[in-house]
Amino acid sequence: MHIHIQNPHDEKLFPVTPAQVEAALSRHPGIGRPEITLADDDAGFASAMQQAEVLLTWTRVVKARFPVGALPGIAPKLKVIACTSAGLDGLSPFTWLPPEVVLLNNRGAHAAKGGEFALMSLLMLASHVPFFGTQQRAESWTKRFGSVLASRTVCIVGLGSIGGSAAQHAKAFGMKVIGVRHSATPHPHCDEVVTTAALDQVLPRAEFLLLACPLTPETRGLIDRRRIGLLPAGAKLVNIARGAVWDQDAVCDALETGALAGAVTDVAIPEPLPPGHRMWRTPGLLVIPHVSSDDPATYNDDTLDILFRNLLAMQAGQPAPNRVEPGRGY
Amino acid sequence: MHIHIQNPHDEKLFPVTPAQVEAALSRHPGIGRPEITLADDDAGFASAMQQAEVLLTWTRVVKARFPVGALPGIAPKLKVIACTSAGLDGLSPFTWLPPEVVLLNNRGAHAAKGGEFALMSLLMLASHVPFFGTQQRAESWTKRFGSVLASRTVCIVGLGSIGGSAAQHAKAFGMKVIGVRHSATPHPHCDEVVTTAALDQVLPRAEFLLLACPLTPETRGLIDRRRIGLLPAGAKLVNIARGAVWDQDAVCDALETGALAGAVTDVAIPEPLPPGHRMWRTPGLLVIPHVSSDDPATYNDDTLDILFRNLLAMQAGQPAPNRVEPGRGY
Repeated sequence: MHIHIQNPHDEKLFPVTPAQVEAALSRHPGIGRPEITLADDDAGFASAMQQAEVLLTWTRVVKARFPVGALPGIAPKLKVIACTSAGLDGLSPFTWLPPEVVLLNNRGAHAAKGGEFALMSLLMLASHVPFFGTQQRAESWTKRFGSVLASRTVCIVGLGSIGGSAAQHAKAFGMKVIGVRHSATPHPHCDEVVTTAALDQVLPRAEFLLLACPLTPETRGLIDRRRIGLLPAGAKLVNIARGAVWDQDAVCDALETGALAGAVTDVAIPEPLPPGHRMWRTPGLLVIPHVSSDDPATYNDDTLDILFRNLLAMQAGQPAPNRVEPGRGY
Repeated sequence: MHIHIQNPHDEKLFPVTPAQVEAALSRHPGIGRPEITLADDDAGFASAMQQAEVLLTWTRVVKARFPVGALPGIAPKLKVIACTSAGLDGLSPFTWLPPEVVLLNNRGAHAAKGGEFALMSLLMLASHVPFFGTQQRAESWTKRFGSVLASRTVCIVGLGSIGGSAAQHAKAFGMKVIGVRHSATPHPHCDEVVTTAALDQVLPRAEFLLLACPLTPETRGLIDRRRIGLLPAGAKLVNIARGAVWDQDAVCDALETGALAGAVTDVAIPEPLPPGHRMWRTPGLLVIPHVSSDDPATYNDDTLDILFRNLLAMQAGQPAPNRVEPGRGY
C-alpha cells in the first residue's frame, strides 16, 4: 500500500512530519510497512499521485487539486482520500468525487480539545465573562454574579465527537443535557435526545444552547431569528459549528437588546472577520478566531491514528468509521 | 440561643431572608429552635445586640460596628461572630476582637463556584482567551492555537476550599498539580505539596500559576518581580486571592514584554479599578470584577449551613472548623 501525505506548502503549525508517521505506524503494527511519501510541492504531489492508493491531506488541497472530473486522470490508483478536517462542507457538492473513492473526515481528532473548549465556553457564560470582556473595553468595573453549572440546562445541537465530548463534560458538572441530532437515538451523556425536527420543542428550556453540528443543507440557517425568539430570556449561546448554522445578525441583534445574555463564537461569516465588523463590538459576544478544537501538540498524532484505524477497518472488510456519505454531507 | 443576622442596609443581591433561615434550620434539626432576629438598620442592630449570642453578618458591618474596645459594651452576651466572607484580611489587625469571642469565616461557601472559576481560568489560558480579548479590542482576527490541559503543570498557592476545589478539577483534567501552602502536608488532589518557603523551587515548573491563598503577612507581595522571573517563559497566571498577593505592576510589565503569555485576575488594587488604569489595557490580561466565587443562587444556603455546622461542633465541645486564628490571619 502506498500512502501519500501532501502538506500545504504554506503550512507552518501543523505539517505532518516523518517522525510523526513513524510513531503512528509503531502504534498500529497491524498496518504493516506501507510505502509512505510526503510532499508539500506540485512535483511531489503529481509524482506520488501516479501510484498512491491513499492520500492524506488538507481540505483546501483537495479542493484545489481535484476539480470536477479530474481525479481519475490525476490519481488513477487512488482508493481513499483522508482529510485533516472534521467538517468537509467546503468540499460540497461532492460531484468531484468518483463513487468508488472513499472520502474520510477527521472526526475524533477534535474531541478532546473541542470538548474542553465547549466546557470552557459554558463556564465563561455562567460567569458572564463575555459581558466582562465588553466591560473591560469600556474600562468599567461592573459586578455581575454568576452561577455554577449544576442543575442548569444545556441544549447541544450535534452529537458528533465534539458535541458528545461537550455533553460528557456538561453532565460531569451536573447540567441537564438535551441532545439534538438527525435521529433521536439515546446518547450516554444526554438526559434526552430529540431529532432536529423537534428542536422548537426544546429551545424554550435551553438556558445554554451549544452548536456543534456539521454544516449541511439541514443545519444551514437552523438557528434563525424565529428560533432565537423561542429561547428563554437571558439565554446564552456557543457556536463551535459553522457561522452559517445561526443567523449571525439576529444573534447580534438579540445581544444588543439583551434578549440573549451572552455568546461565545469560534466561527464567523466571513472568516477572517474584517476590522469594523459589528461582531467585534456586539456587547456580550466573545469572538474566537476558529481555533477551538485544534491542539498542535496532539493533532497530527490523532489524525494519523484515525487514518490507520480506518485503513485497518477497511482491510478487515468493515465499514470505515470516518467515511463521509456525500448525500448526507458529513 | 439568640442568633442575630444583620444584613447591610444596601444589600440587594445577597440579603439573608427568613425563608432561607427556616430552610437551613430544617436541614439541621440538631440546632433546635434558636431565637432568630434579622435586621438591616441601626435600631434593629442595637436592640438585638443586647441579647444576641451569635451574630451573622458582613465583614464591612463588623468593621463599621466594632471599633477597638467597643464590642463588650455594644454586645455584652456575644460569643460568636460569623462573617459571610472567606478572607477576613479586611478585619486585620484583630485588636477589636475580645479573645473570648469566636470569629468564624465562611470558608467552604465559595468552593463550588470558585473551583469552577479556577478551572475556567485554566481552560481560558490554555486556549489563549485573554489574548483573544485583547485582539477583539483591536478588531484583529489572529489565530493562536491552544492546548488541552492534560499533562500541563499547574502550581496552586493556597489549598483552602477554593484552592482545593481547583486542584481537584485540574487533576480530573489530567494536569500535574503542585500545591503550595503553610505546611507541606499532602493533599488528596495534588501530586506534590511544598511549603511557601519552598515556592522558589517549584516556580520554574509552573506553566500555570494559580493564586488562591488568603492575604496574610506571609502572602502579601508573595509573587514579586523576582519570583515572576523564576516562572518558565510564556507562563500563565490566575489570581483569585487578593490583589496584594502579587506585584500588580510587575505582572503587567511581564505581560507587555511577553514574558508571561496571559493572566486572568478576579482582584485588583484598587477595587473598583478606575477607568484609565493600565490593567484594563494590558495585553493578555482579563479583568474580572471580584465575582469569581459567589453564586447568589446558592450562597446564603451554603453560608447558613456553615454557620449551623460550626454551632453544632461547638455545642458538642469540638473545635469550630471555620474559627479564624487572629494570630495567623485566617
